[in-house]
Amino acid sequence: MINKLAIIGVGLIGGSLALALKRAGYVREVVGAGRGAANLQEAKKRGVIDRIAASAAEAARRADMVVVAAPIGAMRGVFSQIAPALADQAVVTDVGSVKGTVVADARAVLGARFPAFVPGHPIAGTEKSGAAAAFPDLFQQRRMILTPVAETQLRALEEVQALWQAAGAEVMSMSVTEHDEVFALTSHLPHLLAYAMVDTLLALDDERDLFDFAAGGFRDFTRIASSDPTMWRDICLGNRAAILCALEGYRVRLDALGQAVEAGDGKALLDIFTRAKAARDKRYDPE
Amino acid sequence: MINKLAIIGVGLIGGSLALALKRAGYVREVVGAGRGAANLQEAKKRGVIDRIAASAAEAARRADMVVVAAPIGAMRGVFSQIAPALADQAVVTDVGSVKGTVVADARAVLGARFPAFVPGHPIAGTEKSGAAAAFPDLFQQRRMILTPVAETQLRALEEVQALWQAAGAEVMSMSVTEHDEVFALTSHLPHLLAYAMVDTLLALDDERDLFDFAAGGFRDFTRIASSDPTMWRDICLGNRAAILCALEGYRVRLDALGQAVEAGDGKALLDIFTRAKAARDKRYDPE
Repeated sequence: MINKLAIIGVGLIGGSLALALKRAGYVREVVGAGRGAANLQEAKKRGVIDRIAASAAEAARRADMVVVAAPIGAMRGVFSQIAPALADQAVVTDVGSVKGTVVADARAVLGARFPAFVPGHPIAGTEKSGAAAAFPDLFQQRRMILTPVAETQLRALEEVQALWQAAGAEVMSMSVTEHDEVFALTSHLPHLLAYAMVDTLLALDDERDLFDFAAGGFRDFTRIASSDPTMWRDICLGNRAAILCALEGYRVRLDALGQAVEAGDGKALLDIFTRAKAARDKRYDPE
Repeated sequence: MINKLAIIGVGLIGGSLALALKRAGYVREVVGAGRGAANLQEAKKRGVIDRIAASAAEAARRADMVVVAAPIGAMRGVFSQIAPALADQAVVTDVGSVKGTVVADARAVLGARFPAFVPGHPIAGTEKSGAAAAFPDLFQQRRMILTPVAETQLRALEEVQALWQAAGAEVMSMSVTEHDEVFALTSHLPHLLAYAMVDTLLALDDERDLFDFAAGGFRDFTRIASSDPTMWRDICLGNRAAILCALEGYRVRLDALGQAVEAGDGKALLDIFTRAKAARDKRYDPE
């Protein structure tokens, strides 16, 4: 049970966490801060937060737990604002999709409070954003990955773990590097590919209006290209090396497919398609 | 109103067409033929077809309309089987996702009956296949593209148009070449990219089991990689040139994105992501 929870950045993730913890009776008061005044008003109106703080520092003051759900690119600024305001026992965590840069930012800015910081990444989300899109079931049976480092306090780690379990998530740990490599492949790369697909149609479009001929498959395939552009810019900048490595791995496979098409190699195509379908169906069947 | 409708290949598309036409009261009897005996039994059990024919030729005999819903690679064989069995006034159409090869096959094999052949492609489908997946609403408000050629009889064109309108589709025409270029970009390319994405995870996977960390976005993005491998092999072989051209166009855009990531060019990334999101949201919002 948390007495005062501060959420810095009350968007889809921060807002949904607040709603889940409130429903679980795990938190007494939720105070929100963030840059969008209209979004914070909406969050208060919907009961996502109980109170709007004028600044991240004010929200963090006397909070037991501070969840920084700001964009990756804003993390460092938020950490430096809250650092002087943190109570002695306060625990800080984040929800950034990239862990390397966030950990580096926290280490650089939180100073003596860095051991109370627990890096985290909930594997949940939709292409929607903002407090208006928040809902309490977002983390139900979804994974929450914590990437503690050598300095991280065990007490802080356990508190953050309990917080996410109360929100319905299945909590697990991995190293910062492993996290960033895994998500470069399973999340960052697909987003890049989807953005590039839409960009290709735009570049090659003419009076035919190509989008009019796209069926349901295309809509699903490009759904993630409706994600927040700023967030994905920050992720690309923050996980640059791992993303380039994933992209290179993808290029190799795509080139192999392209060569099979060019050579009219039906056997190679059938092999690749059959293998991919089996791998996917094994994980997601039945949808 | 059609007296006898023959469906060669009673899968998702052929079966859904039969169900839609029956519901509309547009057809008296539906006879099905195809290679999968179990699938045909299921189609009969579900009321998708009224009768199972022992062969494509038997199904086509005395039929007013023959819909060839076979895989692209099997079209030529089906055309040559039905050609001698066709009644004088019979109209033939198909539902292949590639039109160039199907038209070439029909022209080569249907002989004097080629003018009664109307090439078609309904823009509908799911990643499921088989008669068990058929449902009468599949074509409701979906586009049906006809690609008549110079020899095509106007009477045949009008009959096929009326058939699909009765099934709920919005019928339109375009040239064979334009069709194959448009769908290389909006359908065939996304399928290749999705298959390559799953293939990349398989190639780079290790004891981590990368798929376990994929969220909803990945699931949507790769849904089309659960499509029928044989069908997609045939499409790749059948629309080779246009697909290679679309793939080349995609590579240019993906390389631009990769270079922006490599250069840490936040402005370029934000521009591309913002443009892509706006283009997509304009078409699909609200989902």
